[in-house]
Amino acid sequence: MNPTMPIQADDTATIHAIVDDAWLCHVAFACPDVLCMPTVCWRIGDMLYIHGSNGSRMMKHLGGGAPTCVTITHLDGLVMARSAFSHSMNYRSVVIHGSFEVVPEAGKPAALMALTEHIAKGRGSDARAADQNELKATTVLRISLKEAAAKIRNCGVKDKADDMNLPVWAGVLPITQQRLAPQPEADMDVALPDYLSDWLQSSP
Amino acid sequence: MNPTMPIQADDTATIHAIVDDAWLCHVAFACPDVLCMPTVCWRIGDMLYIHGSNGSRMMKHLGGGAPTCVTITHLDGLVMARSAFSHSMNYRSVVIHGSFEVVPEAGKPAALMALTEHIAKGRGSDARAADQNELKATTVLRISLKEAAAKIRNCGVKDKADDMNLPVWAGVLPITQQRLAPQPEADMDVALPDYLSDWLQSSP
Repeated sequence: MNPTMPIQADDTATIHAIVDDAWLCHVAFACPDVLCMPTVCWRIGDMLYIHGSNGSRMMKHLGGGAPTCVTITHLDGLVMARSAFSHSMNYRSVVIHGSFEVVPEAGKPAALMALTEHIAKGRGSDARAADQNELKATTVLRISLKEAAAKIRNCGVKDKADDMNLPVWAGVLPITQQRLAPQPEADMDVALPDYLSDWLQSSP
Repeated sequence: MNPTMPIQADDTATIHAIVDDAWLCHVAFACPDVLCMPTVCWRIGDMLYIHGSNGSRMMKHLGGGAPTCVTITHLDGLVMARSAFSHSMNYRSVVIHGSFEVVPEAGKPAALMALTEHIAKGRGSDARAADQNELKATTVLRISLKEAAAKIRNCGVKDKADDMNLPVWAGVLPITQQRLAPQPEADMDVALPDYLSDWLQSSP
């Protein structure tokens, strides 16, 4: 395998790691026009979850079993080659084809708790949990990750042989997601909880 | 307008700023199954550009005028409310509906130069420009931003009145894109060019 070409992967660990690094996915569907909507996502086991208001067009359409494609992409760097043509990007992506299924009422509390925990581990037992009305107003959908495919480019420059001696700097400009200091609400008289105190240090 | 609700915007300056902050968009189309593909994007005037190999299924399909939806999303923060239900995210997104048109041969060099300059300003006059064979092998597509719509959430917590006195920390955990130190190729004997020396300081 050429290490400078994107790697295709379908192993569970790779797919789960890319999904777990994401708070957002892009969901595409035809309704009847093609739409591509960013939405919050999280994982439980081998399933990717999304949620929304019962009234949302996307929730209604996807909850009806419409075919969908869900994509998660992390941009990790700009790859600067000696020729414009050979420039590239380092990234990790997961593409999921299939259709969502509706999470039944009884499964919603645990699914939404997992979302709150995905946003910040520890948050689920601190924030007020959803009450009956909130649960009732929310649709939770899930789609299997078993057929998902990951693609990863995570390496240096691949210039053509003829370009290798050009006097042009070549390398990677890495990009990552940075967490900044928590911004409390005005007049917040509750101290930053322990589970958020390492927000700046945690990896995404 | 409730400042804690997402703002819908369709003014050119807002849309252009969100697009210019992006290196990636997600392109959705039906071929015939719905697909959602991450791809490099850049802007010239009122048009969003993408490119790819002539042989790519996406380029062939979109170049034929297929309806598409292109979405750019920046995640700017996690909004931690006192109740799980009121958690939210700060983000900036642009959604473009329409269809791509093929950039004619004569327009390709300037369009691809703009891409190289978008990757890093100054790079276009340093890296070797595309030669005739490379230009011939590349499809460049563009879609109008005139009908694009932006959506922005950029504010604090919106809890329900009954939850305001809960002893739960509330605020925003900001997220941004961080640029890390350039990583030259092994044995690189060309110094980092001036136009990349402020990579770490430049905004995305």
